[in-house]
Amino acid sequence: MKEKDLYSVRTDLAVEAQEMDVRDDPSSSDSDGVKVHENQKDDIKITYVTVDETGAERIGKKAGHYITLDSQAIRKQDTQLQANLAKVLSGQLRKLLQDVGVTEEQSGLVVGLGNHHITPDSLGPLVTDKVLVTSHLFRLHPETVSEGYRPVSAVTPGVMGTTGVETSDMVHGIIKEVNPDFVIVIDALASRSIDRINATIQLSDTGIHPGSGIGNKRKEISKETYGIPVISIGVPTVVDAVTITSDTVDYVLKHFGREWREKDAPSNALSPAMNPFERKELTEEDLPNEEQSQAVLGMFGQLSGAEKKQLIKEVLTPLGHNLMVTPKEVDGFMKDMSHVIATGINGALHPGIEDGEAQSYSR
Amino acid sequence: MKEKDLYSVRTDLAVEAQEMDVRDDPSSSDSDGVKVHENQKDDIKITYVTVDETGAERIGKKAGHYITLDSQAIRKQDTQLQANLAKVLSGQLRKLLQDVGVTEEQSGLVVGLGNHHITPDSLGPLVTDKVLVTSHLFRLHPETVSEGYRPVSAVTPGVMGTTGVETSDMVHGIIKEVNPDFVIVIDALASRSIDRINATIQLSDTGIHPGSGIGNKRKEISKETYGIPVISIGVPTVVDAVTITSDTVDYVLKHFGREWREKDAPSNALSPAMNPFERKELTEEDLPNEEQSQAVLGMFGQLSGAEKKQLIKEVLTPLGHNLMVTPKEVDGFMKDMSHVIATGINGALHPGIEDGEAQSYSR
Amino acid sequence: MKEKDLYSVRTDLAVEAQEMDVRDDPSSSDSDGVKVHENQKDDIKITYVTVDETGAERIGKKAGHYITLDSQAIRKQDTQLQANLAKVLSGQLRKLLQDVGVTEEQSGLVVGLGNHHITPDSLGPLVTDKVLVTSHLFRLHPETVSEGYRPVSAVTPGVMGTTGVETSDMVHGIIKEVNPDFVIVIDALASRSIDRINATIQLSDTGIHPGSGIGNKRKEISKETYGIPVISIGVPTVVDAVTITSDTVDYVLKHFGREWREKDAPSNALSPAMNPFERKELTEEDLPNEEQSQAVLGMFGQLSGAEKKQLIKEVLTPLGHNLMVTPKEVDGFMKDMSHVIATGINGALHPGIEDGEAQSYSR
Amino acid sequence: MKEKDLYSVRTDLAVEAQEMDVRDDPSSSDSDGVKVHENQKDDIKITYVTVDETGAERIGKKAGHYITLDSQAIRKQDTQLQANLAKVLSGQLRKLLQDVGVTEEQSGLVVGLGNHHITPDSLGPLVTDKVLVTSHLFRLHPETVSEGYRPVSAVTPGVMGTTGVETSDMVHGIIKEVNPDFVIVIDALASRSIDRINATIQLSDTGIHPGSGIGNKRKEISKETYGIPVISIGVPTVVDAVTITSDTVDYVLKHFGREWREKDAPSNALSPAMNPFERKELTEEDLPNEEQSQAVLGMFGQLSGAEKKQLIKEVLTPLGHNLMVTPKEVDGFMKDMSHVIATGINGALHPGIEDGEAQSYSR
Repeated sequence: MKEKDLYSVRTDLAVEAQEMDVRDDPSSSDSDGVKVHENQKDDIKITYVTVDETGAERIGKKAGHYITLDSQAIRKQDTQLQANLAKVLSGQLRKLLQDVGVTEEQSGLVVGLGNHHITPDSLGPLVTDKVLVTSHLFRLHPETVSEGYRPVSAVTPGVMGTTGVETSDMVHGIIKEVNPDFVIVIDALASRSIDRINATIQLSDTGIHPGSGIGNKRKEISKETYGIPVISIGVPTVVDAVTITSDTVDYVLKHFGREWREKDAPSNALSPAMNPFERKELTEEDLPNEEQSQAVLGMFGQLSGAEKKQLIKEVLTPLGHNLMVTPKEVDGFMKDMSHVIATGINGALHPGIEDGEAQSYSR
Repeated sequence: MKEKDLYSVRTDLAVEAQEMDVRDDPSSSDSDGVKVHENQKDDIKITYVTVDETGAERIGKKAGHYITLDSQAIRKQDTQLQANLAKVLSGQLRKLLQDVGVTEEQSGLVVGLGNHHITPDSLGPLVTDKVLVTSHLFRLHPETVSEGYRPVSAVTPGVMGTTGVETSDMVHGIIKEVNPDFVIVIDALASRSIDRINATIQLSDTGIHPGSGIGNKRKEISKETYGIPVISIGVPTVVDAVTITSDTVDYVLKHFGREWREKDAPSNALSPAMNPFERKELTEEDLPNEEQSQAVLGMFGQLSGAEKKQLIKEVLTPLGHNLMVTPKEVDGFMKDMSHVIATGINGALHPGIEDGEAQSYSR
Repeated sequence: MKEKDLYSVRTDLAVEAQEMDVRDDPSSSDSDGVKVHENQKDDIKITYVTVDETGAERIGKKAGHYITLDSQAIRKQDTQLQANLAKVLSGQLRKLLQDVGVTEEQSGLVVGLGNHHITPDSLGPLVTDKVLVTSHLFRLHPETVSEGYRPVSAVTPGVMGTTGVETSDMVHGIIKEVNPDFVIVIDALASRSIDRINATIQLSDTGIHPGSGIGNKRKEISKETYGIPVISIGVPTVVDAVTITSDTVDYVLKHFGREWREKDAPSNALSPAMNPFERKELTEEDLPNEEQSQAVLGMFGQLSGAEKKQLIKEVLTPLGHNLMVTPKEVDGFMKDMSHVIATGINGALHPGIEDGEAQSYSR
Repeated sequence: MKEKDLYSVRTDLAVEAQEMDVRDDPSSSDSDGVKVHENQKDDIKITYVTVDETGAERIGKKAGHYITLDSQAIRKQDTQLQANLAKVLSGQLRKLLQDVGVTEEQSGLVVGLGNHHITPDSLGPLVTDKVLVTSHLFRLHPETVSEGYRPVSAVTPGVMGTTGVETSDMVHGIIKEVNPDFVIVIDALASRSIDRINATIQLSDTGIHPGSGIGNKRKEISKETYGIPVISIGVPTVVDAVTITSDTVDYVLKHFGREWREKDAPSNALSPAMNPFERKELTEEDLPNEEQSQAVLGMFGQLSGAEKKQLIKEVLTPLGHNLMVTPKEVDGFMKDMSHVIATGINGALHPGIEDGEAQSYSR
């Protein structure tokens, strides 16, 4: 256990925590406190992870429900896929709200965490800009509000570096004053995998620790602290050099593993290197055996995933080279992703909005 | 009194309220609850207005101290004059803080009111972006903080139209959580005069009514509501069509008044119209007599300033033409003005900052 | 004629030039070189003005075709009306292109004039940002281009104040290099009327004089200078204090004129002032007679519209108070208007785009 | 030679090309067509690389002069170091202009390449925004221009993806029209090393190939194409996953190499891993010997730097995982770097500007 802590690299995503756990200890199974269920809608992979207290201890994520949507809609800049992603998000969010006991008339507060001057950290503020806000109308002009809408407020509390105030204190003060029936918190996350950058949306009913993905421990925003349901929506937007390197080293190992397997196979297929334009996903099964790993990568190839990361981190950190990076196209990705999420939220909170309208509200 | 209310056009500036009062009732004098004192520093005119309870009743502004700085530094886009304006502002603000009992170690909260997506209303958010924030350093890394600094936080609560929450409620929640010793509130104001747009900075110890300049009545942010000193800093950034018209009509009257006076004078000077590049301020003394006014502007010329405004308002409002406007160069003006104000605040709150540094902190 | 020049106040809009002409000289008629034809589509008023050489001399606008769309879609922030306005604009632009001989395969260059750092002058750059650009695809990946599209390029040449280069020189250099079959130029204009700010779109086949609306004479961008059709699309976004005042004074006169008429009428209707929420347009017919005008506004009331403007200008200019202003909501107006215009251009240039798609391309 | 091409990974920096060359072929020396000279000013390392035709062939960079400034001023967000960096840049640029024959009165055109909507590619447009433009003053108001200034224009031609026009064609058209005596081109580059991101400024008299750093070959902007001196200023702002990984793998090797060396040494120093807060640069000398490399990294450890990159590239590219990334703090870095470069250019082009002024012009 101590060993594990030493080598563990935190992740904000339950689905990653669970994968890490399974990989490090293949004997652990679904029944030990973590239930995983997958689903596919068009191009979107939906993963449901339920963690109980036993599982929480094991994978280091709070007990609760986690829903992950995986889609290439943003990276491919495909507006049709994005509209579909927003719709699926809307459905999952509506369902999750019901599951935590939120009724259709209850009032919500949307909190967009992050710094709107740092593009990869601006997801929260961008989303609140596009959320359909109605609380003041219910309060001041109730006659103008149609059926199928509820009171919704939206705030962007800023970050401690620019306000001087702990984000959770700021949110706490606002919640006490606004007194909503439930809270939705949006935040940009750090990822443990290049693949997930701007490609994964995680919903959860476990709340959020502001700044936790970046290594800081701050006060929690959750049902426990506020006494009302807190739904979090997170998207990985940054990754560190350690992750990029260890992911890449893994790809190199799998690449050789597959090449060896294919060489042994009767009909010798072309290696990926010779088909540079055909994209073939490499899988866990492509990993070579221990002996092969050592041949390719020596001592380094013998390490487990977590050990590799830990070693790379120990080398890079003292050099000041463990940069946190984001894709070059970050501006467009943030714009599109915030549009998808705001559309999803608007649709989930206001059943009265027509599909097309949900889009235009969030322009 | 009722008559007066009917025709009164609100102003956020005490100096304007006092001028209106004097103009409408020339018998009223300095001693009736309003004390005015003027000063000049280089190109900056500083006006101190002190209002007691009697005066408050008379001019419709809260009892307290008002300091007005008038300068063309922003409009002329003169960086040297702007640096000087920031310095004078810093001195006046430091003095005002002392006067309300704030000591050098006490912690401050800077609140930037307004909507950062509406340029002429973005002064508050732009200022808080540039304020030197130190609270978190005092709390988390006290060893890094030098002598001559104090704990300062800064927040931008947004506006009701985009948050759904009353601004004063939002500020209330934050103040209760942050628990500062004093508050500085920055806001863009509506002006009653074209001249003052981006040319006047008003400091006051009377607090602020969010949105009051634009005609909405919301809850007050003041010593009375929060129990701690609240300093407000306001700058007029917008003006309505009624004001532009009535100011212009006044200029036309004065123009003729001066022409008549000059025609009668022995040495007949050139009229302003014939010297288009020589800027001559027209003053109250240029106003023609009653008969002349009627000749020039008929019945309209007979009305008092407030009556003219009231009439124009009655005509324009039902037509939907009483636009609130801002100068075409609003983007640059806001950028420069927010720089001046943030530099002034940084200098006043942190005596440890050198002059030049105060500038660079607020870049 | 000399008299007229002295008092004339330039306008970028042919429809205003024609109205001024008719008002100043009621004997002039439609047949004297200016043909006017009106049409209504839903809430949009479409005015076609055709000017021949005789008319050009008379109203001071170049000979050619002018199409004006008037709509409150932007000011009302009504997305449905805006979508409709874009559709009508698209149809009118398509027709105008045909009329000047542009065929469906010919290549176009869209030029967005203006300064993207000055919000009310940023219409051109905002539109080019949203135009669907295809030239490089036709050149480099012709296999990816579907039927119903043509080669389109888009440039934002900047303004002389920030480039140091005459805008027309810059455009000239680009056109010679790009060698398009036709050019569409977008520019923000100054208006002679509060009503038209962000409410009027003018199309014309007469080209454009960069900066002409603001009083500078620069080199023309037109068929004469480039030898290819040049379509201009202009929207009034700013107005000066002179215009606001003279418009308002006119409203005051009309207000009294109507009141007198209504007092004389048997069934005495409520005056507009007493119905502040009912918006009643005042028309030319509401103007009082000469005697009444003098009673209301004295000597000033006797002046013609152009004379009033000239007088106000003579008074304000030497004082430095003839501010060019824009509505407070300029940011939102520019965003929406650029969306409408880009959607209209995309639809007109690429018949292959579906209605809904034209919208999403310009997001 | 063919071998080399196959494995070569392009770099925009001559200093990197030269290092790669030396590393791959240690027998090659300074005399073979590439002269390198280093200098240190405060925290800034200045490297002069002169390439002749022989050297050009060898290292794959055009013959000419390259000056590289290395500084941590931007990454450390240290305004004092940044001011100093701008001053040194100014001096180097002034010298380079003299060397290519530019005299003090000659007119310059500053061209900011890149896309202002993609933050890591916005360096060029951000710089031109801050360059002191004077051409129009010399042309229209020569009486306002003081001694010590020259005519300078500045343009941002945009990128092909948003204009549809080849950048070099656009620049060509503008140069022919503006007719300057010399050109300065600013561009964001791709780096072959994490270390150099936002830490290196390269000046050169060899011109620029727009887009070349990102793998596209477009037409050159150089003395050869335009007949006038073309100075380029480039800063690496992005890096790909291949580079991050191969750099990191190298650090791991060096880390073990040093550990082994230190273990063998009599006084056994602490390993870097045990001193996480002391930053020790790892150098080429820390690389382990061949046997050790194989132990640590197997077959992979035996590859040369270029071979490692080539292999990683072959693995990542077909998977679509060779992301181009930029540091999370890209917004602030671009703002500060553009300020440094514009201040440097302003100082070099206008000797009349005082030191402090050069800063404020570029605000």
